[in-house]
Amino acid sequence: MVLQTIEWRRDSVRIIDQTLLPGKLVYRDCRDVKALWRAIRTLQVRGAPAIGIAAAFGVVLGVRGVTSADHAVFAKKLDEVIRYLATARPTAVNLFWALERMRTVAQRYAEKPVTEIQRRLRAEALLVVREDKEICRAMGAYGARLIRSGDTILTHCNAGALATADYGTALGVIYRAQEEGKKIKVYADETRPLLQGARLTAWELMRHKVDVTLICDNMAASLMAQGKIDKIIVGADRIAANGDVANKIGTYSLAVLAHHHRIPFYVAAPVSTFDMTLASGRGIPIEQRGSEEVAVIGARRVAPAGVKIYNPSFDVTPNRLVTAIVTEKGIFRRPFKRTLKKLS
Amino acid sequence: MVLQTIEWRRDSVRIIDQTLLPGKLVYRDCRDVKALWRAIRTLQVRGAPAIGIAAAFGVVLGVRGVTSADHAVFAKKLDEVIRYLATARPTAVNLFWALERMRTVAQRYAEKPVTEIQRRLRAEALLVVREDKEICRAMGAYGARLIRSGDTILTHCNAGALATADYGTALGVIYRAQEEGKKIKVYADETRPLLQGARLTAWELMRHKVDVTLICDNMAASLMAQGKIDKIIVGADRIAANGDVANKIGTYSLAVLAHHHRIPFYVAAPVSTFDMTLASGRGIPIEQRGSEEVAVIGARRVAPAGVKIYNPSFDVTPNRLVTAIVTEKGIFRRPFKRTLKKLS
Repeated sequence: MVLQTIEWRRDSVRIIDQTLLPGKLVYRDCRDVKALWRAIRTLQVRGAPAIGIAAAFGVVLGVRGVTSADHAVFAKKLDEVIRYLATARPTAVNLFWALERMRTVAQRYAEKPVTEIQRRLRAEALLVVREDKEICRAMGAYGARLIRSGDTILTHCNAGALATADYGTALGVIYRAQEEGKKIKVYADETRPLLQGARLTAWELMRHKVDVTLICDNMAASLMAQGKIDKIIVGADRIAANGDVANKIGTYSLAVLAHHHRIPFYVAAPVSTFDMTLASGRGIPIEQRGSEEVAVIGARRVAPAGVKIYNPSFDVTPNRLVTAIVTEKGIFRRPFKRTLKKLS
Repeated sequence: MVLQTIEWRRDSVRIIDQTLLPGKLVYRDCRDVKALWRAIRTLQVRGAPAIGIAAAFGVVLGVRGVTSADHAVFAKKLDEVIRYLATARPTAVNLFWALERMRTVAQRYAEKPVTEIQRRLRAEALLVVREDKEICRAMGAYGARLIRSGDTILTHCNAGALATADYGTALGVIYRAQEEGKKIKVYADETRPLLQGARLTAWELMRHKVDVTLICDNMAASLMAQGKIDKIIVGADRIAANGDVANKIGTYSLAVLAHHHRIPFYVAAPVSTFDMTLASGRGIPIEQRGSEEVAVIGARRVAPAGVKIYNPSFDVTPNRLVTAIVTEKGIFRRPFKRTLKKLS
């Protein structure tokens, strides 16, 4: 059964608080836009597609308090809510994509009564969820074509059910391949600093009865040298028009290592993750997060007090290191500049 | 002031318990060979040269209880102690090197009274310490020639004062370069799973007023891509006759990344770290450690219960990825098979 990572429940947004996994499976109800913003910022909900869904719901929460029939009041509030949600996290483009989509719907029904616009926005957010489910399934089906029975697959961070409304992007490919009866073995990078691989990916793969082994990020190269990795598949937070991929810090490292060991390196992401306004990955803003994420684990301080820490959340993998990109519209290969054109 | 990582104090071996750093600087006195074996096994004392010194002291502790003047009794005990200490950890060859050195001394004085052999063994262990100090200084002086003012250097794990009797191997090179007035900036990999880079390297570099920034292991590639790393320098646990280097897990990953980004990759290690009986790194035994080291950090379990974990402590970097090896006898370059010949 697929986890309900994020869903609309009565009049609030119910999310799994992913900061507490794998120790506790706790659901939280976000009843206003501030709670939702905080949930995104603190990574209670994370993963590019799930962040997009959260942002769409955030707009619903943010404007539902507007009882005035005055369109100017509503438009001002909507704009304020969208600007606010846009500050939650900078890298995953799905956030901005979902906000723009909501803005477009409000514009389409701008002449209608405020209550109808509010209803339309809620319907749109629910549509984003339904579409995400279909997208995950389509990506899984395309991506599974790349997987052979017997493959051992390395993945990084979490691009699974906990990152989407369905069974994931990169992990969706794995789930689908396993559903097709292919025998798959997975190595999951723990993914420092926030250990999404250990806490989330290993946990959800075990729930889905996938044969998973956890490693520290720095062990991946050794496995590759031993010939133990057949394929690498990861998600993405933003993909530029030329196929450069921003994803969780450490992804670029894996891509270089894959290239050195001649291992295919696949990215799985919905079309909403593509930012066709950016010619290359150089333009992608990389979120820098606080030093405590590296210095403190649980209650334990593992770094000396006052030490300087560099903590970028993402890195950019240049297109030449990407073997193929799996989307709900099919599998794209190099030269991405040409093949991705149909997405713009 | 250089840390006293390991020293003979009155009639016991005083070590810094490195498992408690950086939170607490606690010294422990090992009064018998079992306590010393445990200190090595649990990484209270670690780092190839320091493990060698600990093993030499371990022999002293192990045979001093023999009050019999019977040479057969003494020889049996000595053999037993050496075999026992040899089981503490498998990869760092300095352990076996030190044990063989102690055995040779005992053989040299085999005809002397047992008390004199015991005295000679103690003197030999103290000589190993004195030599290690000189070796660190010589390595530092040679290695510093490779460093230019303005360099930013990446290091992995801990190859510093906490790994030796003096100021270290890889970090010794950095300390020496800084003493020479060169401006150095260092990035330290935190080095999962046991975080020796965060807990030990960052801590001792800060004590020595070296400009250090801590990163997670998976961030190194991104820094290299940004052109922020000029050189990489690491220690070693065992080097084969062809220049293949076993060192802390993650070292091989850095070497591949360095190669890809055309960054020099240096190894600093004393001659006692070379195992000229091994033609290549394939013969080096790689210690596999328990899964709890990955699954639990401080008191926090960060991985789901029962998940499979792969936790090798070391990896092997093939000689073609090593730019040069710094030793107390000078700097060796490829082809190592030929240049290292003078060490055998």
